[in-house]
Amino acid sequence: MAGKVFFSVSMSLDGFVAPEERADDPDRRRWTAQWMELQQWILPLRSFRERLRLGDGGEEGRDDDILRETFARTGASVMGRRMFDLGEGAWPEEAPFHTPVFVLTHDPRDPWERPGGTTFHFVDDGIAVALDRARAAAGDRDVRIAGGGATILQYLNAGLIDEFTIALSPVLLGAGTRLFEGVDATRVALEPVDAEPTGRVTHLTYAVRER
Amino acid sequence: MAGKVFFSVSMSLDGFVAPEERADDPDRRRWTAQWMELQQWILPLRSFRERLRLGDGGEEGRDDDILRETFARTGASVMGRRMFDLGEGAWPEEAPFHTPVFVLTHDPRDPWERPGGTTFHFVDDGIAVALDRARAAAGDRDVRIAGGGATILQYLNAGLIDEFTIALSPVLLGAGTRLFEGVDATRVALEPVDAEPTGRVTHLTYAVRER
Repeated sequence: MAGKVFFSVSMSLDGFVAPEERADDPDRRRWTAQWMELQQWILPLRSFRERLRLGDGGEEGRDDDILRETFARTGASVMGRRMFDLGEGAWPEEAPFHTPVFVLTHDPRDPWERPGGTTFHFVDDGIAVALDRARAAAGDRDVRIAGGGATILQYLNAGLIDEFTIALSPVLLGAGTRLFEGVDATRVALEPVDAEPTGRVTHLTYAVRER
Repeated sequence: MAGKVFFSVSMSLDGFVAPEERADDPDRRRWTAQWMELQQWILPLRSFRERLRLGDGGEEGRDDDILRETFARTGASVMGRRMFDLGEGAWPEEAPFHTPVFVLTHDPRDPWERPGGTTFHFVDDGIAVALDRARAAAGDRDVRIAGGGATILQYLNAGLIDEFTIALSPVLLGAGTRLFEGVDATRVALEPVDAEPTGRVTHLTYAVRER
């Protein structure tokens, strides 16, 4: 049985998945503070700390269970080049995917194998091909479109997302990268699947339907 | 005991409280279709039909209870001039408020009393004065900032909102009036109070705190 194609992101109540990049914030302090607010629910979780090799401990509970399940269902990921470039300098040597990751790029290079089971494959022939390769690699597990926002939107508008989950954070950012900026509203319809508040965020799951 | 100041709106998952006004939609068919999608959860409800004097019947259940409670807690409303102008031609003679309504305007006029308990008062000396008058009229019930979006944002940025509820609709509009466009994110902090999915929408309630 083939898996689903999904994405899972944290979004502010005003629709942003990343803070604004601003010239008057050269050391990215404001950016980082806003990003931490958006991700505040995830950073203390046990499964997150395990995943990033931040050491033992961390909080358990529904948020942790939900995050753990997101990791467990993912057999392969797809990401944009910019997310890869940002992550390459930030992830620990043992990159936090532990599955194949297909990176959309115009500059092909050889696969890059990391300790702990993550291998980055660089795909330069389009989002559909990258997804096919990810599906094949994932087997009966799901494919996660990891990000960033522009990559997620490309897949959404192409009708290639089966469902998605948003961790809606109780924060207003005012500016930044909007998840749904440029969505093809004439094509994408949503069906609510689940909504679960955990105190910190509300986990909202929707199935995507074609109009 | 003084009541709270709140607002309650339907918002699309991409953050819009009204569809886009477009020149290529002269008969507003597209606008109306999108608006119906956004409000789809509310239109069949018994309490909505009662309120608009649309006749007996209608659906009961949690959505209906929540809407009925929103009407019941409201002792007075405040609205912007544009919302009033649009409503003046659209509401039934028995306007659907059944309480005093304070309309922000630059063109004062005499109070306008409607059958069924709604009286519109026109206030030309600012949002704080309008709110004070609404509080006095509401007694121990709450004051609802009824809309539109720009009026809600003025009150939010001025630190005059105690809490709000969003009925988050499973729809993407792509364009229109954003609820939080122009929010002062350096000033407004949110605390999640309640989140309740009903199948049709997710009712999200937040308390507003100053940062």
